[in-house]
Amino acid sequence: MKQPIYLNYAATSNYKFESTIQELSHYLETNNNINTNRGLQNSDELGLIFETRVALADFFHAPDPAHIIFTANATTSLNMILNGLLKSGDHIITTQVEHNAVARPLHLLEMQQNISVTYLHCESDGKLDPTQIESLIRPETKVMVMTHASNVLGTILPIKECFKIAKAYGIITVLDCAQTAGFLPIDMETMSIDVLAFTGHKSLMGLSGIGGFALAQNIEKKIDPWMIGGTGSASLSLEQPSFLPDKFEPGTLNTIGILSLKSALKAINTLGLDKIVTHERAITARFLTGLKDLPITILGSVDPAEMVPVVSITSTMFDPGELAQQLFDRYQIITRCGLHCSPLAHKTAGTLKTGAVRFSFGWHTTIDEIDYTLKALKEILSK
Amino acid sequence: MKQPIYLNYAATSNYKFESTIQELSHYLETNNNINTNRGLQNSDELGLIFETRVALADFFHAPDPAHIIFTANATTSLNMILNGLLKSGDHIITTQVEHNAVARPLHLLEMQQNISVTYLHCESDGKLDPTQIESLIRPETKVMVMTHASNVLGTILPIKECFKIAKAYGIITVLDCAQTAGFLPIDMETMSIDVLAFTGHKSLMGLSGIGGFALAQNIEKKIDPWMIGGTGSASLSLEQPSFLPDKFEPGTLNTIGILSLKSALKAINTLGLDKIVTHERAITARFLTGLKDLPITILGSVDPAEMVPVVSITSTMFDPGELAQQLFDRYQIITRCGLHCSPLAHKTAGTLKTGAVRFSFGWHTTIDEIDYTLKALKEILSK
Repeated sequence: MKQPIYLNYAATSNYKFESTIQELSHYLETNNNINTNRGLQNSDELGLIFETRVALADFFHAPDPAHIIFTANATTSLNMILNGLLKSGDHIITTQVEHNAVARPLHLLEMQQNISVTYLHCESDGKLDPTQIESLIRPETKVMVMTHASNVLGTILPIKECFKIAKAYGIITVLDCAQTAGFLPIDMETMSIDVLAFTGHKSLMGLSGIGGFALAQNIEKKIDPWMIGGTGSASLSLEQPSFLPDKFEPGTLNTIGILSLKSALKAINTLGLDKIVTHERAITARFLTGLKDLPITILGSVDPAEMVPVVSITSTMFDPGELAQQLFDRYQIITRCGLHCSPLAHKTAGTLKTGAVRFSFGWHTTIDEIDYTLKALKEILSK
Repeated sequence: MKQPIYLNYAATSNYKFESTIQELSHYLETNNNINTNRGLQNSDELGLIFETRVALADFFHAPDPAHIIFTANATTSLNMILNGLLKSGDHIITTQVEHNAVARPLHLLEMQQNISVTYLHCESDGKLDPTQIESLIRPETKVMVMTHASNVLGTILPIKECFKIAKAYGIITVLDCAQTAGFLPIDMETMSIDVLAFTGHKSLMGLSGIGGFALAQNIEKKIDPWMIGGTGSASLSLEQPSFLPDKFEPGTLNTIGILSLKSALKAINTLGLDKIVTHERAITARFLTGLKDLPITILGSVDPAEMVPVVSITSTMFDPGELAQQLFDRYQIITRCGLHCSPLAHKTAGTLKTGAVRFSFGWHTTIDEIDYTLKALKEILSK
């Protein structure tokens, strides 16, 4: 068993596919990082970014490769989307389990730009009842933004049901799928998703520093330019080009990051999401079963079928920071303690004051690692 | 001689240092991309990002490693800086040779937020006389933003003189050093630079997708949060943390990009900027001398001592697009034609309607490549 034991996949998929490592190493060794769209070059290089757009459009059922926008991460995407969509007087609906990538930009908009925000009620395990939505919709409700699954509680939200209601009222739907892309199937069409913000370094198994968003047909006209600059196109104008993807892609892109996404998507498609989900749910189930005998409290859902592979716990014996530290110091197990950039989810779970220790699993997590971690917890908590 | 001949270093330094490639390949092969600040981890991983801040703070004479902020590129940095600094009613001074990374955000602020912009006059070769500045300063002048050198004309601007005048009036000074960092020495203290936006993939010889900005002491208090989100710190609050670097670093960073910068900076420091400048100026001088006999017009400065290694030309015989295409098709020479994301510089040079062909050189450019390119130009233009 490889040490340390990495159980922080909800932050970053630490291990990448072997095929991705090989492709990236080859790319580096050819030492030929030509800047797309900013110089004459051979078509292989030009093609890389386009092919990745094609693969992502196919993966998310986006209408067109040009509707895939690359950014540095889901946070950048969500800032661009929310600030580009919302104007003074608008109302937005979100949830009580959002990550700070949504919650902080909305809070700032609320404070500075006369935007009002309604947080859909979630149960303490993160579950959300879509029937509450209709009564909260106002004439000025413009956007609904939701995370696909809580990064603290693991709970998957009923996106399809919520977004169907939103669309019936002409509300623009924005999905934060940082925790689900590469784990759950996501279909922009059947799930009524107008805009989907993703990051590459979690279950999509790419490098850190690459993310983006996907746009449904015609939605780009409703998003004003917010972060802008040189695009290598329409350079005559001081205004950002209105066509896709350039409208939302100022500055030089992270080429090696894009290559990592292309390579990883190929591996994910070859494996199939079914196989990935089956493995990670089995791992999660084994962990949850093992936790039953321990003096701890589990946050969020405890049904692997309704969860992403994320399990957060608290213990009356140790502060979460102390428990995580012991797991690391004594057993070389890497978890993440604290508030996980989601005070909303912790408030919902009743753990805002204490935080929790989060265990999150990925494709590379093994049964041995789970059993070793359960044994470690048992030893620490038996004292 | 390696083919194709890459002469587009002002867009991206195509070839990286061999030591950087080796470090990055090693990093990938260890397959251990732990997400800093978002999980317990070993100190090697935590140290990488900090050490890169230390190296950059030293390189730019920034007050403290925490005053180095990482972003995706200079464009992201400039958007964060300009939008964070400027409020309704403010006046900003810039120049007639800015890149669209400055010009487009300023144009949008001018259109939407009641910001007024004054463009300092530049001669057709890009030269700027600092004595014009004082009469243009108003009581509401808050910021002066300037590129260190034109990415079209090559001309280096008199930053120290301009910023000294600005500081005498309490104006905040912002430098876009995308074209100069890693080529010219930059000292935030002696050059009176309050904020410096850099990108990693040009003369700093890092990968694409990593950039940032450096802040002088206390200036961060004057820059409001603009792009915000999770930071892995102060997670209890829906407000962005006020401390550095977290205030301006939402979302997951580009770790391999940061490693590339750290590695390349080490190589640059070992070589010494003197050696780099001497080589690239000699190459530029050789190219300029060779151009003298050809039926072309050179844009911008023709004195290598006053330039970055960028030479743009036009010809009455060919449209720039056609000339660049012939250089590529017949000789495998990669240049960049068009407006180079700087309509302002082309307007200043009188080439807004036609654009130009830009040749730009770097550490890996050889005398053989210059001579081969001159021969190619001679053949194309003799027909």
